[in-house]
Amino acid sequence: MGRYYFEMLGTAIFAITGVLVVTRRGLDVFGALVLGLVTALGGGTARDLLLRVPVFWVQDINYVWAGLIGALAAFFLGALLRSTSVLLLYLDALGAALFAMSAAEKVMVLHSHPAVAVIMGILTGIGGGLARDVLADRPTLLMSRDIYATPILLGCTAYVMLRHFAPRYPYTSMVGFAVIFGFRALAIHFHLEMPRWLTHREEGAD
Amino acid sequence: MGRYYFEMLGTAIFAITGVLVVTRRGLDVFGALVLGLVTALGGGTARDLLLRVPVFWVQDINYVWAGLIGALAAFFLGALLRSTSVLLLYLDALGAALFAMSAAEKVMVLHSHPAVAVIMGILTGIGGGLARDVLADRPTLLMSRDIYATPILLGCTAYVMLRHFAPRYPYTSMVGFAVIFGFRALAIHFHLEMPRWLTHREEGAD
Amino acid sequence: MGRYYFEMLGTAIFAITGVLVVTRRGLDVFGALVLGLVTALGGGTARDLLLRVPVFWVQDINYVWAGLIGALAAFFLGALLRSTSVLLLYLDALGAALFAMSAAEKVMVLHSHPAVAVIMGILTGIGGGLARDVLADRPTLLMSRDIYATPILLGCTAYVMLRHFAPRYPYTSMVGFAVIFGFRALAIHFHLEMPRWLTHREEGAD
Repeated sequence: MGRYYFEMLGTAIFAITGVLVVTRRGLDVFGALVLGLVTALGGGTARDLLLRVPVFWVQDINYVWAGLIGALAAFFLGALLRSTSVLLLYLDALGAALFAMSAAEKVMVLHSHPAVAVIMGILTGIGGGLARDVLADRPTLLMSRDIYATPILLGCTAYVMLRHFAPRYPYTSMVGFAVIFGFRALAIHFHLEMPRWLTHREEGAD
Repeated sequence: MGRYYFEMLGTAIFAITGVLVVTRRGLDVFGALVLGLVTALGGGTARDLLLRVPVFWVQDINYVWAGLIGALAAFFLGALLRSTSVLLLYLDALGAALFAMSAAEKVMVLHSHPAVAVIMGILTGIGGGLARDVLADRPTLLMSRDIYATPILLGCTAYVMLRHFAPRYPYTSMVGFAVIFGFRALAIHFHLEMPRWLTHREEGAD
Repeated sequence: MGRYYFEMLGTAIFAITGVLVVTRRGLDVFGALVLGLVTALGGGTARDLLLRVPVFWVQDINYVWAGLIGALAAFFLGALLRSTSVLLLYLDALGAALFAMSAAEKVMVLHSHPAVAVIMGILTGIGGGLARDVLADRPTLLMSRDIYATPILLGCTAYVMLRHFAPRYPYTSMVGFAVIFGFRALAIHFHLEMPRWLTHREEGAD
């Protein structure tokens, strides 16, 4: 129950941050709604298609309402929300942690390979943002050194390993959640970037 | 029967306009065929995947032939067709209205939520064009103030509301169709754009 | 058996070439892994979704490991591998020929229309590269005059026609494979481009 409302909140937050990122470029309310919904629902949609299960928001339209409310709020109250943008970064990290863990759990229930659970966790956490950036003609986060996906990779890996090596440990999901949110919060607070040896140097024009 | 041929015509028109939009940038015949097919079939493909029904053109290859004929015609007769580009805009509006209503009806038959019908109508009407623009490295229509998707939103909403509140009214689909085509035709004729209060002002570089 | 290992090799090669194409632009190890996997698995994933069969790498995680090994190798040994880039072009052509034929065969087993087999062959051969270019904010191969997809079109067409008109001929797949690889190898060796009459001239700014 509590989890359900938390997921709705996460969806709205993803839609808000999705719209705030693109509104600087001048776009109309329809474009804002689409990009907000894509950010909020895109990753989970790709996950469900790949797993061949019913798409979550086609099953339960409340996810769409949550995303629409978030997108509309961001469009019309953008200036207001932008002043709280640091808070939004942390809320976005909460949403990503929640969505990623929820996806990893969904895969484990289907008895797929643990590596599939990690992949689906990452896809659900970053897929919506990737699709939004592509549609909004922006460079995707894959091309930046921002530490966004690595916490999800580590958290989901911790989760599937705990499930495998300590199947009776009751707080497996919580550990995964804490790793993702904690690592991402540190990255936000200290402005961490990928270390240079894990980044390819620019070698010339393409 | 008549509807089937009309859908084929709509597919060919979507392929033609899809190719005409991108040929200015210099591309070979293979690229033109792919982009034409993506424009014509992309939206309906996404709709079918999300609804988990067989993809329409895998079931009935005639949609592919219709799209290929349109794309080839546009590639080799581009100069000729471009002189009729206003006519093509209206034909494109006809195609969008037809596809959107046909998608909305498909969803209602599956007893999904009416809001899903509206979303699938919009997706079928604009999805192919979005995919083409992404593949052709162009800004998508989401980033413009052109009134293209709003008529589809209004027409599909009118359709699902009529179905709900006046289930015996026999011309529900026709009303939806007329709203979409009529509003879009007005937007083409009077060069309408989204009003300024529904558009975010450019606030600075990204 | 031999085929299985060959497919793994093809997956790794696709991941390698996928990463080498984008590393010049400065990206971190996580982005490289994602783009390598997208290049290697993207086309086959789209094919499986459209055919409504289980996604191959969700079924058999070894494809993911093969892609990851290739992507990691390309990221850390990039300079080394780039000196063998002509060899990689030919290996990439081998991979494309193998994947395209394997997709076409998969479709024929499902008794779909032969044209669907050709489309799925092309999609499997070029879909991953298209998705990578879109995510990496690069112009896709559709916008270039490079001869990459035409050999796949011809090879898959030869394959389905042979199957139809000479159903007892035992080397059908081999002919298709040879057409794709042979034509592509010629294009690499002689730097062939699409002839001018099959390419639209640049007519002005977009």
